[in-house]
Amino acid sequence: MFLLGELAGRIGAEVQGDPGLRIEGLATLGDAGPAQLSFLTNPRYRKAAEASDAGALLVGQGSGLSGRNLLIAAEPYLALAELLELFHPAVTAPPGVSPDARLADDVETGRDIHVGPFAVIGERTKLGDGVIVGAGSVVGRDCELGEKTELKPRAVLYPGTRVGRRCLIHSGVVLGGDGYGFATTKGEHRKVPQVGRVVLEDDVEIGANTTVDRAMLGETRIGRGSKIDNLVMIAHGVRLGPAALLAGQAGIAGSARVGARATLAGQSGVAGHLDLGDDIIVAAKAAVFADLPDGAFVSGIPAMDHRRWKRAQAVTARLPELRKEVRKLRAKLTELEQRLGAED
Amino acid sequence: MFLLGELAGRIGAEVQGDPGLRIEGLATLGDAGPAQLSFLTNPRYRKAAEASDAGALLVGQGSGLSGRNLLIAAEPYLALAELLELFHPAVTAPPGVSPDARLADDVETGRDIHVGPFAVIGERTKLGDGVIVGAGSVVGRDCELGEKTELKPRAVLYPGTRVGRRCLIHSGVVLGGDGYGFATTKGEHRKVPQVGRVVLEDDVEIGANTTVDRAMLGETRIGRGSKIDNLVMIAHGVRLGPAALLAGQAGIAGSARVGARATLAGQSGVAGHLDLGDDIIVAAKAAVFADLPDGAFVSGIPAMDHRRWKRAQAVTARLPELRKEVRKLRAKLTELEQRLGAED
Amino acid sequence: MFLLGELAGRIGAEVQGDPGLRIEGLATLGDAGPAQLSFLTNPRYRKAAEASDAGALLVGQGSGLSGRNLLIAAEPYLALAELLELFHPAVTAPPGVSPDARLADDVETGRDIHVGPFAVIGERTKLGDGVIVGAGSVVGRDCELGEKTELKPRAVLYPGTRVGRRCLIHSGVVLGGDGYGFATTKGEHRKVPQVGRVVLEDDVEIGANTTVDRAMLGETRIGRGSKIDNLVMIAHGVRLGPAALLAGQAGIAGSARVGARATLAGQSGVAGHLDLGDDIIVAAKAAVFADLPDGAFVSGIPAMDHRRWKRAQAVTARLPELRKEVRKLRAKLTELEQRLGAED
Repeated sequence: MFLLGELAGRIGAEVQGDPGLRIEGLATLGDAGPAQLSFLTNPRYRKAAEASDAGALLVGQGSGLSGRNLLIAAEPYLALAELLELFHPAVTAPPGVSPDARLADDVETGRDIHVGPFAVIGERTKLGDGVIVGAGSVVGRDCELGEKTELKPRAVLYPGTRVGRRCLIHSGVVLGGDGYGFATTKGEHRKVPQVGRVVLEDDVEIGANTTVDRAMLGETRIGRGSKIDNLVMIAHGVRLGPAALLAGQAGIAGSARVGARATLAGQSGVAGHLDLGDDIIVAAKAAVFADLPDGAFVSGIPAMDHRRWKRAQAVTARLPELRKEVRKLRAKLTELEQRLGAED
Repeated sequence: MFLLGELAGRIGAEVQGDPGLRIEGLATLGDAGPAQLSFLTNPRYRKAAEASDAGALLVGQGSGLSGRNLLIAAEPYLALAELLELFHPAVTAPPGVSPDARLADDVETGRDIHVGPFAVIGERTKLGDGVIVGAGSVVGRDCELGEKTELKPRAVLYPGTRVGRRCLIHSGVVLGGDGYGFATTKGEHRKVPQVGRVVLEDDVEIGANTTVDRAMLGETRIGRGSKIDNLVMIAHGVRLGPAALLAGQAGIAGSARVGARATLAGQSGVAGHLDLGDDIIVAAKAAVFADLPDGAFVSGIPAMDHRRWKRAQAVTARLPELRKEVRKLRAKLTELEQRLGAED
Repeated sequence: MFLLGELAGRIGAEVQGDPGLRIEGLATLGDAGPAQLSFLTNPRYRKAAEASDAGALLVGQGSGLSGRNLLIAAEPYLALAELLELFHPAVTAPPGVSPDARLADDVETGRDIHVGPFAVIGERTKLGDGVIVGAGSVVGRDCELGEKTELKPRAVLYPGTRVGRRCLIHSGVVLGGDGYGFATTKGEHRKVPQVGRVVLEDDVEIGANTTVDRAMLGETRIGRGSKIDNLVMIAHGVRLGPAALLAGQAGIAGSARVGARATLAGQSGVAGHLDLGDDIIVAAKAAVFADLPDGAFVSGIPAMDHRRWKRAQAVTARLPELRKEVRKLRAKLTELEQRLGAED
């Protein structure tokens, strides 16, 4: 339990209303009651905010809400992250290696590591201080996991994978699987050995069942602070980030370079061997088939400037009418020509 | 072995031909022989049905097939389900907890549960009567699995996940992974704790390697009787169903609401925070970027009314010709204007 | 260490430059130093090749590079595969069954098999000579794995799955999960039992977290020498290949037939029940909604002939201009008509 005024102090927000209001927890606009704080960080939910029974609302500046207890923050979504941490402190696995885990004799382990039951860790692998390896995870030989990195249950790291510090790898993730490389000769596909590795820099998060393939030679590298959602596919030799955001089911084909702070929305794709600049945005479902300069915002298949795409799509939906108009013009013109005795 | 007439009685169908025909099993049109029953439930396979060596065919009313032994059912695909159950009774794992499974001391278990080897079940989790937890599955603490729910091998449930009765969760499924939420400030992405849960109501099926993320706060909820295919992504805070159908590789972004009996075809997507009505259909590959009323049937990127999309696509394929036509008209018009001495 | 001339002899290539050059390894153009061989197999990297510090370069005929040590091969990508094998001989798991694996009593095993810890193998399953079952994999009852087939850690084979010889199944793959089949009656979806199987012919590779569903009846069959990338979805009853190539996140819906040497690029899809010929190419992101003849090369949603699609897309991006042109023509024509006193 916190008083509203206390919360304001903790997160550097301003109270409008009763700073002595007792807040027992956080809840969604629909679920919150008088002892709970809810939030309005997306204008789409304004009506739901007005109708909410929440005792108080976290909002941004200029929300225009009145007659309510408000916690007004400069960056309300960031403030929400802080409040969630306050009310829901992370529960971490206690240090200890399960007797049901199997570590090779020469695994190097730091202090306070946790290894769950049925985890398997290969030869010469190094686990930094505070590393957590969830139940059933398999970490191949010659891997490195930086301090405080956590593998949730049933992640797989192929041999040689390197993961930085404070990374979070969700269940079902596969890092370091073979890149997709085959030399086709006489209708048969011969495997091209994939002898590179995957490197994740510090503070990377990888969502459930996402796959990142090892490079054929050298590295597939995910830059510092990049956050990747579920079921994303990163092919061999890709270089991404730092601080990239990849939403669910996005994909990047082999050897593409994607710059800093890139955003790939859901189900988007980037073709192989491309160079994409910093701060680019690829809209949901878009497919990038050509290099992009810094700051590009693209949509469509093939991807083009987002505003151009929007205008083009507006016409696309009305193409039958456009064609009808053209046919009408043609008929009128023909009629006119005939009236004038024009030779066609 | 059943006589054709017996089968008709069991499924409420009508025999045309020999009710005394001995049917030893079911097979596809191409594989079936004289002792087997095959089926024609999709008109696309009519020629294959006519050429089939099957002893008898399950068909709908008015199939127009003649000179064959037929089992005529009002709902032939439903009848096929019943016949498959009859000829292939489900083989279920016998009750028992493997000595190689690891259950926390305070797991509450109903009667006749089965837990396979190398499964791990966390503190305070409750398993209803007849629950099956396949080999290598990991069920976190504070989960609940309703009676007769089955986890196939290597499913993962994060802590706090609730699964109803008679659900079927296939291998590689991850329920309750962290939602994808980050507050970006000064070019860095700070994790927004995801402290909600995933709730599956009764009779839900989830296909292999599909992921359903936990809500940031509150629930991600999959309604009763919904059936989800493989490699589908359901983001945090989604509410879906009841009785929704999601085909392979579909995705629903965060906080979207999708109504009852919705159909999302393969590789389709729904953007975040949308409200989609009941009985909607989203065609394969479509991307829904706006709310949809009940009964909408949409296609395209962005999704639009399906018939409009079809007409627009027909023109799209012929756009080069349309442009040529417009250029021709322009040329003629210019010529006409010149002939008439028109000032432009 | 090899001399450049030796390497040429091994792979049937020609040396331009110093055959006595000592090559210690292979590296990418950016990473290679004077003791390393790099390669130029994609013209996109020509400048990087010119700038590379590599001691020698593997190239195709007519590369036009000069003043460098070159290894000139007729099929340079194939030569690269051979060189990678030479410098990086495969490390395979030593024969032996982990005491932490659980095999049913009646599993039939060939010579020199390897089974990792926490693997589970069901009744009556047969493992050919040299089979490798990685840690944590689950192989159901009545499966067959041909000689030298390898399952990487944490693959799952449902009961009855048959895998040919020399197949490579990556981590997280699920073979034989239930096909997605439901008979809908009165708004409820009744499961149609899926009692068929998955068959992989010889020399098939399946990428991480890909799923191949069992047929409702009969087989889902992946033809000999087919290579499938990560996160691909193959639905029930599909027949594919031989020698098909499916890139990441592609999907094939139920009962589709896809011919020999088909290429499905990334994130492409094929609708159910279609017949696609041999040697077809489906471009990235395309969706095939109709049968395709041998040799078709298609793009777009819905997929059409690739060249037609390219021309149509070029116009799509300029649709707003086209519409403006049409409006201008209409205005001019109207003006002309008025000048001529034409009744509209």
